[in-house]
Amino acid sequence: MNKSRLEAFSDGVIAIIITIMVLELRIPRGPHATDVKSLIDLSPTFISYILSFIYLGIYWNNHHHTMQAVKSVNGAILWTNLHLLFWLSLVPFVTGWMGENNFARWPVTCYGIVLLMNAVAYGILMAALIRHEGKDSLLAKAVGKDWKGNISIAIYAVAIAISWLNSQISFGLYILVACIWFIPDKRIEGKIKQREANPE
Amino acid sequence: MNKSRLEAFSDGVIAIIITIMVLELRIPRGPHATDVKSLIDLSPTFISYILSFIYLGIYWNNHHHTMQAVKSVNGAILWTNLHLLFWLSLVPFVTGWMGENNFARWPVTCYGIVLLMNAVAYGILMAALIRHEGKDSLLAKAVGKDWKGNISIAIYAVAIAISWLNSQISFGLYILVACIWFIPDKRIEGKIKQREANPE
Amino acid sequence: MNKSRLEAFSDGVIAIIITIMVLELRIPRGPHATDVKSLIDLSPTFISYILSFIYLGIYWNNHHHTMQAVKSVNGAILWTNLHLLFWLSLVPFVTGWMGENNFARWPVTCYGIVLLMNAVAYGILMAALIRHEGKDSLLAKAVGKDWKGNISIAIYAVAIAISWLNSQISFGLYILVACIWFIPDKRIEGKIKQREANPE
Amino acid sequence: MNKSRLEAFSDGVIAIIITIMVLELRIPRGPHATDVKSLIDLSPTFISYILSFIYLGIYWNNHHHTMQAVKSVNGAILWTNLHLLFWLSLVPFVTGWMGENNFARWPVTCYGIVLLMNAVAYGILMAALIRHEGKDSLLAKAVGKDWKGNISIAIYAVAIAISWLNSQISFGLYILVACIWFIPDKRIEGKIKQREANPE
Repeated sequence: MNKSRLEAFSDGVIAIIITIMVLELRIPRGPHATDVKSLIDLSPTFISYILSFIYLGIYWNNHHHTMQAVKSVNGAILWTNLHLLFWLSLVPFVTGWMGENNFARWPVTCYGIVLLMNAVAYGILMAALIRHEGKDSLLAKAVGKDWKGNISIAIYAVAIAISWLNSQISFGLYILVACIWFIPDKRIEGKIKQREANPE
Repeated sequence: MNKSRLEAFSDGVIAIIITIMVLELRIPRGPHATDVKSLIDLSPTFISYILSFIYLGIYWNNHHHTMQAVKSVNGAILWTNLHLLFWLSLVPFVTGWMGENNFARWPVTCYGIVLLMNAVAYGILMAALIRHEGKDSLLAKAVGKDWKGNISIAIYAVAIAISWLNSQISFGLYILVACIWFIPDKRIEGKIKQREANPE
Repeated sequence: MNKSRLEAFSDGVIAIIITIMVLELRIPRGPHATDVKSLIDLSPTFISYILSFIYLGIYWNNHHHTMQAVKSVNGAILWTNLHLLFWLSLVPFVTGWMGENNFARWPVTCYGIVLLMNAVAYGILMAALIRHEGKDSLLAKAVGKDWKGNISIAIYAVAIAISWLNSQISFGLYILVACIWFIPDKRIEGKIKQREANPE
Repeated sequence: MNKSRLEAFSDGVIAIIITIMVLELRIPRGPHATDVKSLIDLSPTFISYILSFIYLGIYWNNHHHTMQAVKSVNGAILWTNLHLLFWLSLVPFVTGWMGENNFARWPVTCYGIVLLMNAVAYGILMAALIRHEGKDSLLAKAVGKDWKGNISIAIYAVAIAISWLNSQISFGLYILVACIWFIPDKRIEGKIKQREANPE
């Protein structure tokens, strides 16, 4: 089965998610609509938006990199991919909820849960891809022991627990994970270059 | 006529439908905006969202599979495809209406009607494709007697009728149909593999 | 210059316009949210939605057909295409306004103006395409005297004027134009087939 | 790394931004919903929408032209492109804010800041592309001294400062920059034609 429509559909969904998120930045209305204060009141929502934008950028980036190492897809991959898109689609909701309530406890906890589920869903997608491509595939070698994925899940779990003590620290941990992932997955790029330089 | 733009357009519309549906998950506002209770109040909407997400995933998946077995399209196919997209576009409305009103009678009935019309529209699209491809085509053989489509329509009809007695049972029936379809259409995949293995 | 990105961008914009239009179908809220009456109250909006969906389908269809007869694009085509997309993007606004106000005079007039401007914008795009392709091109021969486009513009103008006497008649005329266009542009399809059968 | 998915994703995001912007044109509601006055009240929003539509059209156009001169992309390009999309995604917000408040001081200032950041982000993307393609590349020669980009940034800065004295003049300056850019980037098109006519 051809991978191009799966790529196009995922691109479409991620592009829409990343863009509708900005709809949560609601235009100030009422008597003070044009005060700078009304803009400052939006700053927690804006900060949340920036972080979520980066997260979605990371997911799109990694999805892009991963799919380049993949030759074809099957039914299981289509569904694990949809499963990932489902959890990504919840990002705008938790982003807006967290931002509008100034990083209150429950919204920060839920933001973490959605990030955690995204990480898990991404792991499941990778597993389905590797099962399809084979253990000796380029992808399997490139991913190897997915320490980045595992460490992210661990940090999310800590951040979710800490959100009950101090939600600011949790938010800092979410930023930390974004920093870890910010660099695109060199492993796959490296392996592809190796293959090109040295085709077996 | 080339099928790639029809695929791209359908992908785009389905991707947007699946994503704007999440806008019906409205961020809790008001004095209790950060209570967990406000999240629990959203659970019927969330459950409806999950089911509709799966339905749209199934339609995208089957559309994907079907189009792979098709070589070209004509004007009738373009319009029967738009007809399907029309009914799919109503899914977010009935999903939100059903979820916000906790599976009340009329919303559940209408949800069923939209699902039914989607199934009918999909059947019409398949008929137009088979008419275009020919009775001896790969697609015609793969689809054969479309028992899944027929049984779905029958269950929807029952669910719509039952919604006047007990809307919970109707919702259960909608879940049942999703389960029947969850497995991607093996028939077409099987036939494609046969053709590849044994080109006539 | 390559035409594929122009096609992809136009598909994307039209797909989004056609889908966000359904957001104007607002979920009934308030004490009577689950009554069938609240659904009946939506019927003018729903009818407007159906007509606009068909119009956008026609534009997408004709765009699709036209672009198949085109070999490349230039800067002027990119901008006349964006100009068309601009007027198409106003369709959801006038559709919702007309539907919510039960076909009141001003909304019906404005709906007609937007349709008229779309027809004009489409004509400009066609002219830019023909100027680029040449007077002896497949496209120029296929379009010939664009009686359908001209008659549409005439009917829109009549409908806009009549909307001040009776907006129902105007709406009927909008339906009439949709019927005229419903059949995809056989001229271009016919010419393409001729060319394939008889390459000069 | 292949450039096609980056193009598709950018097309998707820009298409969505350009289309959701129209959602800020809110359907008039209330007792005077069908008066022509309610439409006139929307005119500042409508004028803002037209300008932003043209700006997004310019960015899409230039993005299109630039990418045609590019052979491949790398991680840095993916991220500088996402950075540009981030600033583009803020255009609907400032457009709506400016339009609803009739070109009040703060919204006009912020509109200018977002345009300025878009111009800066576009410059960063161009720099990343040229670094990747090489100083002797087609793109580097075509862009040369980016006087258009530099003059735009200068005018934006002036407009932002002037917005504190007279926001109408600022808006006029934003229109001026749009006029400067309206003509697609002839430099790149010219260089591509040269290359085709005279391949080294």
